[in-house]
Amino acid sequence: MTEGICLIGAGRIGQIHAANFAALGSGILKYIVDPVTEAAAALAADTGAQATDLETALADQEVTGVVIASATNTHADLIEKAAHAGKAIFCEKPIDLDLQRTTDCLSTADSLGTPLLLGFNRRFDPNFAALKASLDAGAVGTVEMVHITSRDPSPPPVSYIKTSGGLFKDMMIHDLDMARWLLGEDPVEVSAMASCLTDPEIATAGDVDSALVTLRTASGKLCQISNSRRAVYGYDQRIEVHGSGGLAQVGNQHDSTLSINRGTGLQGDKIQHFFLERYAEAYKHEARHFQDILKGSATPLATGADGLKALILAEAALKSLQTGTTVQL
Amino acid sequence: MTEGICLIGAGRIGQIHAANFAALGSGILKYIVDPVTEAAAALAADTGAQATDLETALADQEVTGVVIASATNTHADLIEKAAHAGKAIFCEKPIDLDLQRTTDCLSTADSLGTPLLLGFNRRFDPNFAALKASLDAGAVGTVEMVHITSRDPSPPPVSYIKTSGGLFKDMMIHDLDMARWLLGEDPVEVSAMASCLTDPEIATAGDVDSALVTLRTASGKLCQISNSRRAVYGYDQRIEVHGSGGLAQVGNQHDSTLSINRGTGLQGDKIQHFFLERYAEAYKHEARHFQDILKGSATPLATGADGLKALILAEAALKSLQTGTTVQL
Amino acid sequence: MTEGICLIGAGRIGQIHAANFAALGSGILKYIVDPVTEAAAALAADTGAQATDLETALADQEVTGVVIASATNTHADLIEKAAHAGKAIFCEKPIDLDLQRTTDCLSTADSLGTPLLLGFNRRFDPNFAALKASLDAGAVGTVEMVHITSRDPSPPPVSYIKTSGGLFKDMMIHDLDMARWLLGEDPVEVSAMASCLTDPEIATAGDVDSALVTLRTASGKLCQISNSRRAVYGYDQRIEVHGSGGLAQVGNQHDSTLSINRGTGLQGDKIQHFFLERYAEAYKHEARHFQDILKGSATPLATGADGLKALILAEAALKSLQTGTTVQL
Amino acid sequence: MTEGICLIGAGRIGQIHAANFAALGSGILKYIVDPVTEAAAALAADTGAQATDLETALADQEVTGVVIASATNTHADLIEKAAHAGKAIFCEKPIDLDLQRTTDCLSTADSLGTPLLLGFNRRFDPNFAALKASLDAGAVGTVEMVHITSRDPSPPPVSYIKTSGGLFKDMMIHDLDMARWLLGEDPVEVSAMASCLTDPEIATAGDVDSALVTLRTASGKLCQISNSRRAVYGYDQRIEVHGSGGLAQVGNQHDSTLSINRGTGLQGDKIQHFFLERYAEAYKHEARHFQDILKGSATPLATGADGLKALILAEAALKSLQTGTTVQL
Repeated sequence: MTEGICLIGAGRIGQIHAANFAALGSGILKYIVDPVTEAAAALAADTGAQATDLETALADQEVTGVVIASATNTHADLIEKAAHAGKAIFCEKPIDLDLQRTTDCLSTADSLGTPLLLGFNRRFDPNFAALKASLDAGAVGTVEMVHITSRDPSPPPVSYIKTSGGLFKDMMIHDLDMARWLLGEDPVEVSAMASCLTDPEIATAGDVDSALVTLRTASGKLCQISNSRRAVYGYDQRIEVHGSGGLAQVGNQHDSTLSINRGTGLQGDKIQHFFLERYAEAYKHEARHFQDILKGSATPLATGADGLKALILAEAALKSLQTGTTVQL
Repeated sequence: MTEGICLIGAGRIGQIHAANFAALGSGILKYIVDPVTEAAAALAADTGAQATDLETALADQEVTGVVIASATNTHADLIEKAAHAGKAIFCEKPIDLDLQRTTDCLSTADSLGTPLLLGFNRRFDPNFAALKASLDAGAVGTVEMVHITSRDPSPPPVSYIKTSGGLFKDMMIHDLDMARWLLGEDPVEVSAMASCLTDPEIATAGDVDSALVTLRTASGKLCQISNSRRAVYGYDQRIEVHGSGGLAQVGNQHDSTLSINRGTGLQGDKIQHFFLERYAEAYKHEARHFQDILKGSATPLATGADGLKALILAEAALKSLQTGTTVQL
Repeated sequence: MTEGICLIGAGRIGQIHAANFAALGSGILKYIVDPVTEAAAALAADTGAQATDLETALADQEVTGVVIASATNTHADLIEKAAHAGKAIFCEKPIDLDLQRTTDCLSTADSLGTPLLLGFNRRFDPNFAALKASLDAGAVGTVEMVHITSRDPSPPPVSYIKTSGGLFKDMMIHDLDMARWLLGEDPVEVSAMASCLTDPEIATAGDVDSALVTLRTASGKLCQISNSRRAVYGYDQRIEVHGSGGLAQVGNQHDSTLSINRGTGLQGDKIQHFFLERYAEAYKHEARHFQDILKGSATPLATGADGLKALILAEAALKSLQTGTTVQL
Repeated sequence: MTEGICLIGAGRIGQIHAANFAALGSGILKYIVDPVTEAAAALAADTGAQATDLETALADQEVTGVVIASATNTHADLIEKAAHAGKAIFCEKPIDLDLQRTTDCLSTADSLGTPLLLGFNRRFDPNFAALKASLDAGAVGTVEMVHITSRDPSPPPVSYIKTSGGLFKDMMIHDLDMARWLLGEDPVEVSAMASCLTDPEIATAGDVDSALVTLRTASGKLCQISNSRRAVYGYDQRIEVHGSGGLAQVGNQHDSTLSINRGTGLQGDKIQHFFLERYAEAYKHEARHFQDILKGSATPLATGADGLKALILAEAALKSLQTGTTVQL
């Protein structure tokens, strides 16, 4: 039996997933669901899928997987519906901004035995995947310190910031997941310091745009995360891992390998602008990975539990910032 | 009216073109033609196209373009047939290994007004395209010297070498095209020196595997090309252009940006293995460019005349090697 | 009148300063003073200076400057003696490990109008000096975030650690000075997290070997410092500064520009092993700077007050580590 | 017995050697000789040496070595005089621009058993020395192809060009020496192509400013040399060596490791401006090497015979350019 997928959400990230699943061939992408029916129809036409409604898609026995790329506040409900319908799920992060709602939703999915892949796309980036593989192979000995630099090219609209959960839950959550993944242990101490440096309106909205977080695991491994909502030179996504045997680093990807050398020095090309460029390959690998999950040949590389733990760390960072103390977990 | 394409040749390079044209959407890839009918059928199944024979494809008025990816010795005949059928043509290089046959074939295509795109894929590589654009924008002033390094990871089978036309016509021809493209002038002097260093059987087959060629244009611009059939570290594809105002360089692409720093020094990831990896993007751009030609919104970036001129340079290099003199054109 | 210098301390760092002052020519290095008279005599012979005792040197009116490179616990006394003798002073850091003793000593020197250069050698490193100059020139706009990586190749003997003041006062104090210098503002919040990962004996001695410190200034600028007593790949000394207009980075220096590309990837040369190699140029610039101070053409680039402020930050970091809170200054 | 050195020539390169020998300590630099007595006196004062005349210096039995840094047309005579006086010799290249005069001079020195170090300074550059050591250690297997890029920042005055011997004998001779050193074999074929691109007056003076030379050894190893009298981005000194087992590269040295990343891309610091900066370390190593020769603990790394062979190659390149043929040696 072939796998069939229903994609929910025909917006920007939905379009990326649709194209990647369509490119897997064999008509794996069967349905597009979106309350904006024109958007669903247009995306379906582009990718050889059919636009339909959620109920039809979930009732179709040929649909074995559901991809949730709709608005954040619909994720938990859709996970529960798809889980009850017996589908495997690939859901964009976060499951929910509320810890309790997240816990309840995961509990439902777990009790139904639902395979649930959470969209921590960076785990699928070829560069970070090569880093993880080299760590697992012992390339730098025992991992001891992790440094994560993650900076967006420019802040989102303040309207978005107000509903996104703020820098820690919306942006740093990716880095908190990478920290857990690379440290190989869960942090037990969290300390945060932050400022609003790019736009005073972000402060008015109750958020920060520049943040430094420090983590420590029970065995003493340390991690630093540096976030900013603005990097005029592009999407700055770098990680370095210090181990007992050396240092492993992943750098940025540039638009090209062209460099120009003039009297003023050496000029290299720009780094890739934002996540659509930098993580284009990651999204493709993520789609193939979900296909493997549907086939039964893989288990989710990033689970609902991973999402929950990252959310707990994000809340701890926020609490540390508010209290000026190191939060113990 | 939509464009329809017939692809001739279901081998390795044909499969790449088929996938890229299929990914353009709208069912642009209509037919696959190959004397090995199983190969045609399999590739058609993978890409949503139909396997058919040449006559049927050329007779179909919905087919406006033909992609020739079959064996070299079929290129000239197929170009003539497709030209007579009124199709636009995208043909893998070379048109023919024989100068006269090439000239005759191009004369036919020209007289019929056939748009003919020759598969000099490197012109479509994003790195080299960025280089060309920066030169055209005057980033390094007047171009004066071009250095081209082009080394394959390992030699092809000697059986292939015997029929390929040899290093100059088969391998360096790409570099000779890049030289012309980047110099912006045709060379009028050619000098070559070469050796057989990797495998004595290549010498027995009458070929060399390591070659240095120097070119000079009428205005005095200079170019060096360095070729080898072996580079154990991967497919080495670099160009540097010296101008009155500075130096522009294009480097290799690496498998990832991961580097490891241990007591023995800094270890970066491998460079991409061969042309399928390095020029994957180039082939995609090439397909889009042919689609634009079919739509009438572009003219061929690499023409049959470009192929002819590169072949003339390759023959001059061979003559210089044989005579120990600088060949004047 | 020519300047004459008396160097106190003929140990490792004293030998470096002696060679650099001797190389300034004109016999500027007049005396070497060390309680181990054989060491003083040997160094004097190597550098064309005379070995003598402190009283003789301070009494000599041709001696206008004193370089203090003796044991840490002698610094404050020697500063006071030299200041009373009317000499300009170049003293290795720290002035003292005790805040009160430091304050008192500086008060004496200040009241006597003594020019006092403190040996924060990194300010004289050509790379960091180029960074500072580019920041001052506005190359990245307003400075917002500073990241400092500073890792020694291997831990000192535990016996040294016990008397050195510990990681914060002995090692990170250099980074705390760089932070103040590059931020252009004094931090008002300090948070620290640390572990002992390289050698349990360091923990037994009451110290840590791996530490992360976060700083925040009154205007909200942020800084991260990452320290480790061990980096098997060499002396890791990097800084990056994020500003409103971009990112400025200073990388490590390598033993050579040689790289080797084999089937396993690209291998670059090692980074310089430790401070004697990395900061060799810095020490030379520092000597010239002290000569300029003696001539009256420069004022100290790093002062006693800078030393005091760095010490205050180091103590705050230690307090943050012990209390698990962000320390306000 | 200690070694004593007499330096002949107090010009730019003489001043560099004087400073480097003085820094070796122990008063090794005894005499400065220059027909411009004020120049000799000034340099002697700076370096603790004595100004004297040639006869006095050669007659002094404490002088065991002579450093010849005077005008080119005095080299051969001075070598012969110093050889007859029984001194070891370190002479700047070339011995003479004339092949016969060079041969005669070397014959005299040889018959007297004179140790003669020729100033091919690049062999002492730490980067190229690391390259040579790695080749000798088999890092890239059997050496097969060498690429040498050597470009000056700007042309010398045309008056200099007229007397210098021209680009091949004056500038490329360094690269021809590097080619021999790295290939490990003498070239037997030489081919040249060249242009005058930077200043028509250079052509009027009968010289070229841009040249490409190709070499081939008896065993088939190949080498390319690229020269230009102008590189607005600095002194471009790079070498790459391809072997059966990989590629070894030496890159340029930059003024600092500072890089700036803005919206326009990554900006690295300039490469070092010219030979005084790039080869500062090489000149120091060269001085130490000559001291070792005087002590009898080393034999010349670059000999008069090396100078002669490079001159023969330079003449062959010139002949190839004039005749349009590959010159056989």
